[in-house]
Amino acid sequence: MIIVLEQGATREQVDRIVKTLEEKGVQIHYSKGVDKTILGLIGNKQTLANLPVERFEGVEKVVHVSEPFKLAGRSFHPEPTRIQVGDITIGGNEPVVIAGPCSVESREQILETAKAVKKAGAHILRGGAFKPRSSPYSFQGLKEEGLKLLAEAREVTGLPVISEVMDPENLDLVAEYVDILQLGARNMQNFHLLKKVGQTNKPVMLKRGLSATMEEWLMSAEYILSEGNPNVILCERGIRTFETYTRNTLDLSAVPVIKHLSHLPIIVDPSHGTGKWRYVTPMARAGLAAGADGLMVEVHPNPEAAWSDGPQSLTLDNFASMMEDLKSMQALFSASTR
Amino acid sequence: MIIVLEQGATREQVDRIVKTLEEKGVQIHYSKGVDKTILGLIGNKQTLANLPVERFEGVEKVVHVSEPFKLAGRSFHPEPTRIQVGDITIGGNEPVVIAGPCSVESREQILETAKAVKKAGAHILRGGAFKPRSSPYSFQGLKEEGLKLLAEAREVTGLPVISEVMDPENLDLVAEYVDILQLGARNMQNFHLLKKVGQTNKPVMLKRGLSATMEEWLMSAEYILSEGNPNVILCERGIRTFETYTRNTLDLSAVPVIKHLSHLPIIVDPSHGTGKWRYVTPMARAGLAAGADGLMVEVHPNPEAAWSDGPQSLTLDNFASMMEDLKSMQALFSASTR
Amino acid sequence: MIIVLEQGATREQVDRIVKTLEEKGVQIHYSKGVDKTILGLIGNKQTLANLPVERFEGVEKVVHVSEPFKLAGRSFHPEPTRIQVGDITIGGNEPVVIAGPCSVESREQILETAKAVKKAGAHILRGGAFKPRSSPYSFQGLKEEGLKLLAEAREVTGLPVISEVMDPENLDLVAEYVDILQLGARNMQNFHLLKKVGQTNKPVMLKRGLSATMEEWLMSAEYILSEGNPNVILCERGIRTFETYTRNTLDLSAVPVIKHLSHLPIIVDPSHGTGKWRYVTPMARAGLAAGADGLMVEVHPNPEAAWSDGPQSLTLDNFASMMEDLKSMQALFSASTR
Amino acid sequence: MIIVLEQGATREQVDRIVKTLEEKGVQIHYSKGVDKTILGLIGNKQTLANLPVERFEGVEKVVHVSEPFKLAGRSFHPEPTRIQVGDITIGGNEPVVIAGPCSVESREQILETAKAVKKAGAHILRGGAFKPRSSPYSFQGLKEEGLKLLAEAREVTGLPVISEVMDPENLDLVAEYVDILQLGARNMQNFHLLKKVGQTNKPVMLKRGLSATMEEWLMSAEYILSEGNPNVILCERGIRTFETYTRNTLDLSAVPVIKHLSHLPIIVDPSHGTGKWRYVTPMARAGLAAGADGLMVEVHPNPEAAWSDGPQSLTLDNFASMMEDLKSMQALFSASTR
Repeated sequence: MIIVLEQGATREQVDRIVKTLEEKGVQIHYSKGVDKTILGLIGNKQTLANLPVERFEGVEKVVHVSEPFKLAGRSFHPEPTRIQVGDITIGGNEPVVIAGPCSVESREQILETAKAVKKAGAHILRGGAFKPRSSPYSFQGLKEEGLKLLAEAREVTGLPVISEVMDPENLDLVAEYVDILQLGARNMQNFHLLKKVGQTNKPVMLKRGLSATMEEWLMSAEYILSEGNPNVILCERGIRTFETYTRNTLDLSAVPVIKHLSHLPIIVDPSHGTGKWRYVTPMARAGLAAGADGLMVEVHPNPEAAWSDGPQSLTLDNFASMMEDLKSMQALFSASTR
Repeated sequence: MIIVLEQGATREQVDRIVKTLEEKGVQIHYSKGVDKTILGLIGNKQTLANLPVERFEGVEKVVHVSEPFKLAGRSFHPEPTRIQVGDITIGGNEPVVIAGPCSVESREQILETAKAVKKAGAHILRGGAFKPRSSPYSFQGLKEEGLKLLAEAREVTGLPVISEVMDPENLDLVAEYVDILQLGARNMQNFHLLKKVGQTNKPVMLKRGLSATMEEWLMSAEYILSEGNPNVILCERGIRTFETYTRNTLDLSAVPVIKHLSHLPIIVDPSHGTGKWRYVTPMARAGLAAGADGLMVEVHPNPEAAWSDGPQSLTLDNFASMMEDLKSMQALFSASTR
Repeated sequence: MIIVLEQGATREQVDRIVKTLEEKGVQIHYSKGVDKTILGLIGNKQTLANLPVERFEGVEKVVHVSEPFKLAGRSFHPEPTRIQVGDITIGGNEPVVIAGPCSVESREQILETAKAVKKAGAHILRGGAFKPRSSPYSFQGLKEEGLKLLAEAREVTGLPVISEVMDPENLDLVAEYVDILQLGARNMQNFHLLKKVGQTNKPVMLKRGLSATMEEWLMSAEYILSEGNPNVILCERGIRTFETYTRNTLDLSAVPVIKHLSHLPIIVDPSHGTGKWRYVTPMARAGLAAGADGLMVEVHPNPEAAWSDGPQSLTLDNFASMMEDLKSMQALFSASTR
Repeated sequence: MIIVLEQGATREQVDRIVKTLEEKGVQIHYSKGVDKTILGLIGNKQTLANLPVERFEGVEKVVHVSEPFKLAGRSFHPEPTRIQVGDITIGGNEPVVIAGPCSVESREQILETAKAVKKAGAHILRGGAFKPRSSPYSFQGLKEEGLKLLAEAREVTGLPVISEVMDPENLDLVAEYVDILQLGARNMQNFHLLKKVGQTNKPVMLKRGLSATMEEWLMSAEYILSEGNPNVILCERGIRTFETYTRNTLDLSAVPVIKHLSHLPIIVDPSHGTGKWRYVTPMARAGLAAGADGLMVEVHPNPEAAWSDGPQSLTLDNFASMMEDLKSMQALFSASTR
């Protein structure tokens, strides 16, 4: 940690900072430059993180030189984390495709979709049962009924299932039915929920918040990891920018950056990332080309009648075509990038 | 609601859209322009909101012409909402000042601050007991002990108190001690929590999310209102932009816009809005000048030693000076703008 | 164009709007909904674009249903535009790779780079001679001397060259030496310069502005096209967001969106898009996978000593490896996506 | 300047960095921490700014501790700059109000507006003659004819005039007619134009770019100052964010921040800042309360018929009311903040 002093900082101000910090066991390197003087602070990362040094008189700014995460970082865990869900490995040699409707709507809908995506080559079935909706008047999901239908679809197809948990109260209920817990973008900094899922042993897919930096995202993963659950999958689903033509701006650079900073697997969601079905396939291709460990794609037998996210859902046929397109890529990439 | 058709939309596609919508009880106005053809949809707001019309073939885009909120809107409730907390009216003729430390740290700290801010003219005492922190290794608040100290400070000074509730599990506990429940920016779309506080009868201060549009913010208020709790106070605390010199970008235009769209009172938080104590007073002045119903300001007896948010905290003296400065403004504004 | 009326709009206000518009030759469809009344305006696109209708009393908002661009749009020109530069076709079946240093620094540097990128498979040589720099104290380019060196490198290698033109005053000079004129992100809305390059017959590569929507970008292309120069190449180089880990956020969704809206070719610049050489190759792969017509990549024989943009420059070896990696992709993609 | 080394940086890598830098006359402080090792670089600011140190092997990141601007900074010029335009002082004790139409449209329009804003208390008349428009098909201004009409309005009312210069080619022409040259947001990093206006002796009002950080804005001012023209006025006019309800997000925190970092006067433009006339007065109040040196406001005798920016223009009556409202504030503020 580095303190940059104000140009007019007095001797007394500097002495006071130094004395206070030394009393906390921090060692200080003093370095006088042409314009600015800086103090290099040497000490335990946690001690440093909690020092309110910016508020001292004479301080212009404080610069953190260490990443704030530990368990989520590559230096702590150099090998990539692989997460096993039944026969499927997330973070392994093969990209994994998660597909299914935004919301579970009916027995017919989820079974038809499950069979079709399985046939087209998907590895995991998605389906929302508890739905976070910006309007209290919108469809909020079938709740436990939806989870039961998902479980039935798993039985029929053999596909593991993933569904979102929105609050600690329903965590046990959701965990009972699903193979992977999903934490939505709006809950990326719901710290209470992060801790609770960290206390389970279920794999957790943590979506990036709409305006979360990659560092904050990894810190949210750190919450889960620090509670004892090592099975965290990250999911890039687009960030909020000034561009309105797409629903979000899919930040594919997150893929190589996360691979560099962290050992956790990362999945790309081109459905939320673009908000328009037309752009899902090209962005799915791009996600894999950037090195993602997999994709999460919304698929609906009849998007025109979907209760949520219709505009960004692929039809069963669209999905089958996308999978055809991707299969050749997977062959190619498994050789060159993994 | 308006559907803009693709330029090449076929007769069959249009007929199909019209037929499907008419079956749902929607009336349609067809309007052929030079470049584009549009369909005007007339029907119940809720029916329209849940139609997945964007996904129909032949549709280029869909434009919503009604605001999605109802109870939070001016047309539903033309008079401004006034919220009574003991003797204090929020949304009345006088701006209200909420002040206190980011976190309750000790009996001495909170009592000293409470007395000082009361003396300087503050109306309500703030203090965090459950703290949302981006790092699991940072101080997470004194929890119930902090709430007890807040309550003691209320007893000593007579100031009502506000503190954040982070999760439904602790809602009853927090509600037992405080006069106003605070919902933080990271929880603005924690829909489960919104519903739960909507089922209490406590006033709720709802902070704007870091990347929430004003419409989404009002929709989150709508969640609380629609559960039966009419006492919602909005708080603008800065949004996330590309600018990094300030911690957030305080969007003061939210004040007149919210006043135009909604009847709910709005408070400005220049501490989080700027992240630097130096800019708190000018932005507090600007907030009142824009027409805010009050301010929320972080104050600490010794910011250099604060356990959180030191850089943006005013000292007790800074706060007294700010209040002096604002008093003359309040006299002025109470005449002209209310 | 659609006018949404305020809920309380009076008969007089509506009559006044209708009368004024009809006098301008606009035809009006009146459509009364449950909450809102809308007016559909039918008329010439240009007449509509210049009506200040938002300011009429009784108007809540105005919605544009037509895209503002014409010559840049797919409906005007359904076939993709192919731009010929010597033997190279941009927008054709094969992705095109533009490579070279940020700035031309010396004869040795540009010749060494030109030979190396040619050998590795690049199609066009880039090199800045006039450099837009945020500081007046930074290196501003070798100017005409740089252009001469570029031309010499073309002679030696046979590669066509591209370089930035920053102002109309130097346009003739730059145009004399280069095969493609580059317009930088900061000049995307330098309308005077857009018109001037539109009056030449040189191909123009127009970079997307840091905070430009895709619609604004196409409108800037429209400026060039409307002056008579049909040879516009778009270049996505990252937009500015809250994320600071990468220099910009490379918006690869621009690739399929532009392909949908426009006939113009689009190139991806992963060097500026990420700002870090380490992420250039994965994002180059992703760009091609998204369907881009080519790449623009910064390459320097010794990035540690580069006068500008060193951190994002590939070494000659890095570039050769990237090209190896991409070649297999190109084979694949030329079959499936073009 | 500080170099943070990678955790695995080798002895050879560090030696190489140190040797290269020492050869350039940079002195180095080596400081080994618990997690990270840093190098503090001491030397001439300009030498440091141009070192491509981020690209050296073994370097994780580089942190700049000095501001990049010099002439624009407070430490170079501690006293506030006051700019004299006829009898008017910008940056003095009294806020200055600049008012007038977006575009000069006709003799009647500009004269009527000039007389009305003068009567209401405005100090300077604005009016666009060369208009930057995102569409080539929109009205582009009356050009020299508009400048002549502005000059006539000055003669009639005695108000100094300001108008935008869009390109170096017309600089002499515009400078001949106006008292203050305006540089628009889209030209904030048109470095060629910045240099050219820096070579005149006219006061220049430099608008903040749509996505410019405050540091970049001051660097653009530095371009003008470093060419010898000390008369730079900054103008905050809103930045681009995800919020779409307002045209831009007016960043009023720029006012106290610029006052802290720089000696240059700063003006607030609530018309572009909000895009809606309804919010202009409250944001004008807020701008002055934040400490701005003045306001720039769009006023039109008949906004419903304005050729540009009608929705954000005040009528003559609106403007007179705003001035009444502000006068009481000015009395108050001139005492307390200046």
